[in-house]
Amino acid sequence: MTQPTRDDRFSFGLWTFGWQAQDQFGRATRSPIDTVEAVHRLSELGVWGMTFHDNDLFPFESSEAERRSAIDRLQGALADTGLVIPMVTTDLFSHPVFKDGGFTSNDRDVRRFALRKVLRNIDLAAELGAETFVMWGGREGSEYDAAKDIRAALARYREAVDLLSEYVIEQGYGIRFAIEPKPNEPRGDILLPTVGHALGFIETLAHPELVGLNPETGHEQMAGLNYTHGIAQALDAGKLFHIDLNGQRGVKFDQDLVFGHGDLQNAFSLVDLLEFGSPEGGPTYTGPRHFDYKPSRTEDAEGVWESVRANMRMYLLLKERAASFRADPEVQEALAAARVAELAEPTLAAGEGHRELLADRSAFEDFDAAAYFDGKGFGFVRLQQLALEHLMGAR
Amino acid sequence: MTQPTRDDRFSFGLWTFGWQAQDQFGRATRSPIDTVEAVHRLSELGVWGMTFHDNDLFPFESSEAERRSAIDRLQGALADTGLVIPMVTTDLFSHPVFKDGGFTSNDRDVRRFALRKVLRNIDLAAELGAETFVMWGGREGSEYDAAKDIRAALARYREAVDLLSEYVIEQGYGIRFAIEPKPNEPRGDILLPTVGHALGFIETLAHPELVGLNPETGHEQMAGLNYTHGIAQALDAGKLFHIDLNGQRGVKFDQDLVFGHGDLQNAFSLVDLLEFGSPEGGPTYTGPRHFDYKPSRTEDAEGVWESVRANMRMYLLLKERAASFRADPEVQEALAAARVAELAEPTLAAGEGHRELLADRSAFEDFDAAAYFDGKGFGFVRLQQLALEHLMGAR
Amino acid sequence: MTQPTRDDRFSFGLWTFGWQAQDQFGRATRSPIDTVEAVHRLSELGVWGMTFHDNDLFPFESSEAERRSAIDRLQGALADTGLVIPMVTTDLFSHPVFKDGGFTSNDRDVRRFALRKVLRNIDLAAELGAETFVMWGGREGSEYDAAKDIRAALARYREAVDLLSEYVIEQGYGIRFAIEPKPNEPRGDILLPTVGHALGFIETLAHPELVGLNPETGHEQMAGLNYTHGIAQALDAGKLFHIDLNGQRGVKFDQDLVFGHGDLQNAFSLVDLLEFGSPEGGPTYTGPRHFDYKPSRTEDAEGVWESVRANMRMYLLLKERAASFRADPEVQEALAAARVAELAEPTLAAGEGHRELLADRSAFEDFDAAAYFDGKGFGFVRLQQLALEHLMGAR
Amino acid sequence: MTQPTRDDRFSFGLWTFGWQAQDQFGRATRSPIDTVEAVHRLSELGVWGMTFHDNDLFPFESSEAERRSAIDRLQGALADTGLVIPMVTTDLFSHPVFKDGGFTSNDRDVRRFALRKVLRNIDLAAELGAETFVMWGGREGSEYDAAKDIRAALARYREAVDLLSEYVIEQGYGIRFAIEPKPNEPRGDILLPTVGHALGFIETLAHPELVGLNPETGHEQMAGLNYTHGIAQALDAGKLFHIDLNGQRGVKFDQDLVFGHGDLQNAFSLVDLLEFGSPEGGPTYTGPRHFDYKPSRTEDAEGVWESVRANMRMYLLLKERAASFRADPEVQEALAAARVAELAEPTLAAGEGHRELLADRSAFEDFDAAAYFDGKGFGFVRLQQLALEHLMGAR
Repeated sequence: MTQPTRDDRFSFGLWTFGWQAQDQFGRATRSPIDTVEAVHRLSELGVWGMTFHDNDLFPFESSEAERRSAIDRLQGALADTGLVIPMVTTDLFSHPVFKDGGFTSNDRDVRRFALRKVLRNIDLAAELGAETFVMWGGREGSEYDAAKDIRAALARYREAVDLLSEYVIEQGYGIRFAIEPKPNEPRGDILLPTVGHALGFIETLAHPELVGLNPETGHEQMAGLNYTHGIAQALDAGKLFHIDLNGQRGVKFDQDLVFGHGDLQNAFSLVDLLEFGSPEGGPTYTGPRHFDYKPSRTEDAEGVWESVRANMRMYLLLKERAASFRADPEVQEALAAARVAELAEPTLAAGEGHRELLADRSAFEDFDAAAYFDGKGFGFVRLQQLALEHLMGAR
Repeated sequence: MTQPTRDDRFSFGLWTFGWQAQDQFGRATRSPIDTVEAVHRLSELGVWGMTFHDNDLFPFESSEAERRSAIDRLQGALADTGLVIPMVTTDLFSHPVFKDGGFTSNDRDVRRFALRKVLRNIDLAAELGAETFVMWGGREGSEYDAAKDIRAALARYREAVDLLSEYVIEQGYGIRFAIEPKPNEPRGDILLPTVGHALGFIETLAHPELVGLNPETGHEQMAGLNYTHGIAQALDAGKLFHIDLNGQRGVKFDQDLVFGHGDLQNAFSLVDLLEFGSPEGGPTYTGPRHFDYKPSRTEDAEGVWESVRANMRMYLLLKERAASFRADPEVQEALAAARVAELAEPTLAAGEGHRELLADRSAFEDFDAAAYFDGKGFGFVRLQQLALEHLMGAR
Repeated sequence: MTQPTRDDRFSFGLWTFGWQAQDQFGRATRSPIDTVEAVHRLSELGVWGMTFHDNDLFPFESSEAERRSAIDRLQGALADTGLVIPMVTTDLFSHPVFKDGGFTSNDRDVRRFALRKVLRNIDLAAELGAETFVMWGGREGSEYDAAKDIRAALARYREAVDLLSEYVIEQGYGIRFAIEPKPNEPRGDILLPTVGHALGFIETLAHPELVGLNPETGHEQMAGLNYTHGIAQALDAGKLFHIDLNGQRGVKFDQDLVFGHGDLQNAFSLVDLLEFGSPEGGPTYTGPRHFDYKPSRTEDAEGVWESVRANMRMYLLLKERAASFRADPEVQEALAAARVAELAEPTLAAGEGHRELLADRSAFEDFDAAAYFDGKGFGFVRLQQLALEHLMGAR
Repeated sequence: MTQPTRDDRFSFGLWTFGWQAQDQFGRATRSPIDTVEAVHRLSELGVWGMTFHDNDLFPFESSEAERRSAIDRLQGALADTGLVIPMVTTDLFSHPVFKDGGFTSNDRDVRRFALRKVLRNIDLAAELGAETFVMWGGREGSEYDAAKDIRAALARYREAVDLLSEYVIEQGYGIRFAIEPKPNEPRGDILLPTVGHALGFIETLAHPELVGLNPETGHEQMAGLNYTHGIAQALDAGKLFHIDLNGQRGVKFDQDLVFGHGDLQNAFSLVDLLEFGSPEGGPTYTGPRHFDYKPSRTEDAEGVWESVRANMRMYLLLKERAASFRADPEVQEALAAARVAELAEPTLAAGEGHRELLADRSAFEDFDAAAYFDGKGFGFVRLQQLALEHLMGAR
């Protein structure tokens, strides 16, 4: 069961295993990986899909012929292996032209260029059959409060997404957009810093139905937020269009570790939510399980492919443990004692409104609040202990 | 100009100067403050309004007569001084009954009791002429991922806010709700942890027009987020219904320092945004300037009132400095060089759509991206330096 | 093996299970626990020792007779059960008199009173046979940079510890001191904020040999630091005199969760270090395994005792998993490939100094640095994956 | 007074203004700066000294002739301008060979190579008259707890520093070492993560007198620590050998902003401590005021030099404000009321020991602890307000 198959719908970004390990303080430790070779390797490992930024596939300065050649080679490899391209995204952050952002650069010429770069890449996404187009606005932000008019920036962001939405609609592409929030790095503060901010922003768009989220584990955890909670709110809003799984160890720089190699217990509750968290117990998210991580800079090519395997194996091991957690009668008893399911029951009775509630003396006048002192404990610690014991394979 | 007057619309929570300084690790260092005396004192200091939780005014266990007596004494003091009650809120976090939250407790009886407690307090808010009803859900959350079904919790939160909205509508009260986000403390993770999450949630409500935000400086900064950015996004969404000003020094426990005694430069940009940040340069927020802080536990009664004064003085000093920043011709030149205003200009020309943009060769084919290497610097550091020099009174 | 026995040397603070669950935002949810009853209960659960602050056992305002009566009752319970008191500590943080600290209050009278309170409690520690006297200076710090002369504060801290050391020496008590660092809360910034700061401070004392550390899991993690690394440095310095085990989920307020209920993978590496981390593979720390945590405020008395059990069970489960990790031949192979043991080999050959090193052309002139590009990977990701699989009971 | 002169002893790293603005997510936006040109430019701006890593001056792969030529050109520029080289440091982090660190790489060959690289660079430091040799061990650390034996790593670190100390002693170089702590980035956890950890480590060395600290503003603040407090403890230990000034806005990736462009109030208290914080009111640190920052990636060459100027101007403006704060009679009165100076008074009277203290009934039996409830406030909020008003030029 921990052997990945295409039914698991695992996908990897070309920039993940392909990262050459150049970082803020050091040069590359690895050579680039050939795309065709990579597609074959992924296929052998049981991977289902690959994703990419335009400039992962061909350099920013590519001629049209070079660009086309890279696309053709990719399509050949896809045809040979059966791998799919479920998601495409655009690099609006590497080149100096985007030093103050793409859609929200103070420089209008840059904004127009950014839109053109994305429009072109949407055509490619459609050509390759991608269903999701991710937008990570890593350079949309500022270091200094006076340097950016945030409301104007949000207006420009909106203008951009609205234009792209209209384009997709008019072209008849079966593509939806997924915004990827991040609180900071490389900018001091990034616009739409968390799942919540992106959800709020989406509702101000002209075509909110076309736009959802691509939340990344580490990005939420960099703000000290509970990733599973964020995913649950995204599901609540019907906006979990795609997901970026990786690992992060606390509030610090973006680590991009292997999934589960960061906050293990939160990874456990996340997989439980994705796989079994619906009211009926079934999956709550049916899209790709996409890994957006970086093989550590200490690794060579062998380590890179080990890390690809590790992501999938962590996911499958956590899925096994979540299943055993759900199936354990003692857990079910503890969940009942903690009244976890009672929260799904509406607070109001059927047909009840404020008049009826106000008339119910048992809800207030006769309610025994004092009974909650030295009593009516929730047993949450016991439940947590059971969860961790399943996570540790100790039950 | 730094002497507060009622025109400044400064307000304070009764629980702020009234905090007895009992904290997680120590007992109270100060006696309670009499409400009537406090109202008179605030009035003398130039304060315009006071706010409270129900149980700031009368204890949880009060009889109806005790409750009414406390309200009557307050109203007498208001009549004597002219102070107003612009906002009221409910304590759903102190009593043991709320140990797992109010609207989202796993225990349905608690949820019903919480609704009743709030409904009763809304009547009081209306009686006192409050226009805003704040909801800080400090106990709505969890420590353990398995202990709380987050989607069910959001559904119950929604059910609660929808019921309260219907009540306000039916009663014809001129009251709007303002959700106050917080990432954690006292719960390990709190629902609706940031301005963004609350904005997203509001759009799922039955009466979103009645519900906005009451963002608190320190709460956003506890997640490492830029408070000014959060306020700007709330303004963009038309949801800045109320504001809680205080000070916080970084990602740690909730410090509730005096406004400006935390991240000074962010306080500067915030006041600039509130007072002068509209596209035309005027105020962007016309509601109360509400301070939600705690006088340090080291202070006695004299220090408490010093701290009340300090909040207002910091705000007015920052307002002066923001005005001088805006008026400085060198700043205006630096803002132009940094193209800050250019971001307010739409990216598309009037009438332009994707077809026209795609036809504009200057936007892509003839665009000189290479010019942004070693050129087209934004001058943001200079602008930041100018801002800080105004903040420091050095220009 | 996961059933605790006295040989495990587990100990608990009286203030842990005894916490009444009053926090910064709410009142108590539980009654106090009788000390004698608690000692018996701990004994039944396999606990070996109990610890306390003076005012856990008797209130600050106790008369001498009340104090003695509380001590006598405790001693009776110890005699009945065989539980020991391995550590005692003094409360210099709850009472208003300590609002600016004890040893480093700006008020000299308070400093003198604090010394007397501690001296008296050292006598009690000696009477009860405690070997360690912990000093957590939770109120030694400041909120405002101008309010505290930090160098003067360190001088006073030193003066205090030196005086106490002389007292212990002269009395012939077999007691050593253990400083417990914490970065913040309840003060904005606390003196000696981390394991490192305390280590540095100890070397400036008159009797450094008498003073070591009592590092707490959550306190280091509140600063985003790796707790296992801190413990390793304390061991390196010979200063791990005592340990406070608990759980924390990231950079936020002090959560005091059950051990292992926070950062699970760091708890795993910690137990591995304490139990098997010596160069020869045996234990590296032979003192008490002391839990300093708080049963969640949601729990009633039953939940409190569940949480006591959970701490010990987590420790023992992690010990089992660490043993299996160490014993796995594949792990041993991966450790060798990652050259982990090679770090214990001196960099210089026996007898080698800088002259010999400078003469070794293989170390520089003939060294092939380029081989580390695309080669000589460390295989750390594979090792991490193996560690987590053992932690998850998956091997 | 805010015009920098050589008497201010301002120095800059060659890698600071010389940063080409390549970061984790994007390529360079600026060309390299010629060293000779830079020295002349710095000189014109009133800068006193320049510092560098070996590979800032000449590439890792340089031939001996290329290396010498670069050194000669530098020396020519120094002779022409009078600029000095007060500090030199070695790059043990950029090249792939150091991917697991230098002194503490698991690979012994790398450790030996690292020592040779540093020895060679110490000769250069001596040749150029540098008095301080900084060691920032940015790659000394780990991502995964099982991958690094921390005690072995500390032993190897010690072995390295001891060898280098012996070399400096035997060569008769007038050089001292300064360790620069950092909590994380680029490694997940870095050894000697804070000022405190480095202080503790130094005491375990063979020649502790030769080794001190080079604390960087942002590095301490990345762990949420108070930088001024850390500097004060370094001064207390006699270990402030050098200083790295810059700006950071909270717990996140290493921002390397201009000094004062981060936490402004902490920058104010720092300058106050360095310039006026001695018991007699004079300077507490007489070494270089060294800026280790990065001009934002948005800036072109003009912005780079603006940022150089901004660092010095911030320092001098803060020095002016600290002087005015110290001179204000109302501040002096508030300091006295807050008893700040009383902390410098020993807690024990002259000649007093524990016997005399125990005999002083006024210290305990007759001490009125209750007077600290509702009384004996410290007035810290007022003092903070006065400090901020001086910082804001409002007094």
